[in-house]
Amino acid sequence: VEPVPIVTFLSDYGLDDPFVGICHAMVARTAPRVRVIDLTHGVPKHDVAVGSVLLADCVPHLPPPVTLAVVDPGVGTARRAVAAAAEGPGGPHWFVGPDNGLLAPALAVLGGAVQAIHLAEPAGVSATFHGRDVFAPAAARLADGAQPDELGGAIDPGGLCDLALPRPQVSVGRLETVVLSVDRFGNLALAASPEDLRDARFRTGQWLALTAYPGGTRAARLARAFADVAEGHLVVLVDSNSRVAVAVRGASAAERLEAKAGTRMTLSARGMPAA
Amino acid sequence: VEPVPIVTFLSDYGLDDPFVGICHAMVARTAPRVRVIDLTHGVPKHDVAVGSVLLADCVPHLPPPVTLAVVDPGVGTARRAVAAAAEGPGGPHWFVGPDNGLLAPALAVLGGAVQAIHLAEPAGVSATFHGRDVFAPAAARLADGAQPDELGGAIDPGGLCDLALPRPQVSVGRLETVVLSVDRFGNLALAASPEDLRDARFRTGQWLALTAYPGGTRAARLARAFADVAEGHLVVLVDSNSRVAVAVRGASAAERLEAKAGTRMTLSARGMPAA
Amino acid sequence: VEPVPIVTFLSDYGLDDPFVGICHAMVARTAPRVRVIDLTHGVPKHDVAVGSVLLADCVPHLPPPVTLAVVDPGVGTARRAVAAAAEGPGGPHWFVGPDNGLLAPALAVLGGAVQAIHLAEPAGVSATFHGRDVFAPAAARLADGAQPDELGGAIDPGGLCDLALPRPQVSVGRLETVVLSVDRFGNLALAASPEDLRDARFRTGQWLALTAYPGGTRAARLARAFADVAEGHLVVLVDSNSRVAVAVRGASAAERLEAKAGTRMTLSARGMPAA
Repeated sequence: VEPVPIVTFLSDYGLDDPFVGICHAMVARTAPRVRVIDLTHGVPKHDVAVGSVLLADCVPHLPPPVTLAVVDPGVGTARRAVAAAAEGPGGPHWFVGPDNGLLAPALAVLGGAVQAIHLAEPAGVSATFHGRDVFAPAAARLADGAQPDELGGAIDPGGLCDLALPRPQVSVGRLETVVLSVDRFGNLALAASPEDLRDARFRTGQWLALTAYPGGTRAARLARAFADVAEGHLVVLVDSNSRVAVAVRGASAAERLEAKAGTRMTLSARGMPAA
Repeated sequence: VEPVPIVTFLSDYGLDDPFVGICHAMVARTAPRVRVIDLTHGVPKHDVAVGSVLLADCVPHLPPPVTLAVVDPGVGTARRAVAAAAEGPGGPHWFVGPDNGLLAPALAVLGGAVQAIHLAEPAGVSATFHGRDVFAPAAARLADGAQPDELGGAIDPGGLCDLALPRPQVSVGRLETVVLSVDRFGNLALAASPEDLRDARFRTGQWLALTAYPGGTRAARLARAFADVAEGHLVVLVDSNSRVAVAVRGASAAERLEAKAGTRMTLSARGMPAA
Repeated sequence: VEPVPIVTFLSDYGLDDPFVGICHAMVARTAPRVRVIDLTHGVPKHDVAVGSVLLADCVPHLPPPVTLAVVDPGVGTARRAVAAAAEGPGGPHWFVGPDNGLLAPALAVLGGAVQAIHLAEPAGVSATFHGRDVFAPAAARLADGAQPDELGGAIDPGGLCDLALPRPQVSVGRLETVVLSVDRFGNLALAASPEDLRDARFRTGQWLALTAYPGGTRAARLARAFADVAEGHLVVLVDSNSRVAVAVRGASAAERLEAKAGTRMTLSARGMPAA
């Protein structure tokens, strides 16, 4: 049995309009045997930074061979439409989307782009819906086995628009960073890794002073799972994407801390308030 | 390889309840080889007019052979359940849904219905969920190759409930119309075509006075793309469905103009306010 | 043609994050020929009771052979991950999810679990996302034909966590119960069956006094369909899941009665207010 080629798909199109459905229809018409898996279409509208984080988080789990990603506030401007490949576990994995930084952190997870194409615009392309007119057909054709050079001209993968995730400031006993994304449950993913926790010499089980700006300082426990703190308590843990995250067991940390993507946050071993 | 038959699916069921999932399940049980593509289920509840516009916008992009559309405030009344076929590019394209006008603008895009069936109600049909009990099984069977007369009795396609989209009033220098639909980004699709812009003698690049009722008058530029105006400015353009649309670059025109489906709107070459 | 094995999928993950998409990706990577049908991911977050009702409502319509259900406030605690089979119409139907009661009403619809497995945790499992790490792969493997004992050790199906739906109190002329769930249209599904209406000696067409707590008493008609009352009027009917439901024709009963899941409600043949 020949494996079904898959296009995974992330966007800020939402599901209340037919944008996503029409992109699915375009894939089905371009390459009927290709299957589409929706990652999410709930990226906040035009938020390239949050979209790039969510896409990067998906990378370790993506089936081959193509991912379509569209968060495209510059549609209709001179920004390029691109396809870029990195080395996936079973061969090249292609990312198709606008060259505005959205794809960069995902490509970085796989070691960076090794090949890139500036997608040619088909005749009759609209000025506002390149997901339908440019990106979905290109993704479908790549998944269906088209040679990359059928889709446009090769460009230098080193010249793709970069978008580095923010890096935390770490010293012994202190970690300063920002919220990268907030999920449905109000859990806050921070721009920090387990290595950063180690560099700060934080220990599992330790109480930390957690400060959100603007806003106050609260006690939070560094733990392995939600279940390691009592209902309603703040916990700092490593989430399922290997990011440091702040959560409240059974409630929303985003509401508790009035935090959102971009909120500055500090974890400190000193100055801990009464729990 | 035999092509996979596809049912495209639009409704006002939303995704917070299992309505859509159960319709998918019914298709899978009725005709396992048929694939379902969701267009959108975010039509405002019971809003046949907006649903009919979104469905018509999808028509040029639909893979064959069947589209299932359910916005059905009259479920359980005497309104008919129907399947109606128009001539698609590759043969008849069937639309399955309630005979309440929802299907009419979509059929009109393909030149009108040439064949119609009054769907027979299966035994044990519920009084409230014909998507599951009547429409999804009929769509699945049609896509799977059933003969239309297996599904019910032929009716006069000219007798289907009509629902014409509103027509604009156009004179030289002036276009009066209404908002047909609003998308996630706050872009407003108007009941007007590029021909209407030509008839009004508006020129690309021209500033127009845009009046929303109730509400004030603002300057808006007639342009090709969002990118032709500065961030935060109003732009009138032809959208990806070939409708005249009002947008704000990088923000929501619906919020700026307090407009929604049905809002009256006038574009005028005279009486333009200071930009 | 060999039938495509299907995993039906319900959760409280929502669609704004990539949780659901990553579970789809895991199924595709684990068992490429398995197809996933989303039932709904709009279960209110962490609401095991409402999730269990929605899942049970889906049961009569589920294609075989596996349903994946995740509403899992106890992820990372000692609650078990399980797969449990009941006798479906075409053989065993497996339900995969947390052993917290979520699966119990669904299993009961099919006569109860006849077989159960305590799922082994794969190496490297996260503490927060068992949908991805435990449940989706197990569901994919079961649908793909794996033997249950490859997934973990057999356990007593009688020892699974139970979660009985609330039972109404019925006497002649009176029915006391609670709201089980609310759909997008504001229809209220009650914990009551057509048999309960018969036991109360209510007759179709009869006016009843409907009391929601807290809140007042209103007249509602017991009817067969929305269409049997005038626009804007309250109606009590048997819904498409064979539950007694309260609705307002053309509007939201949830808004009218300020009711939600858990709201107490009484139907009475006496003390009817002026309609």
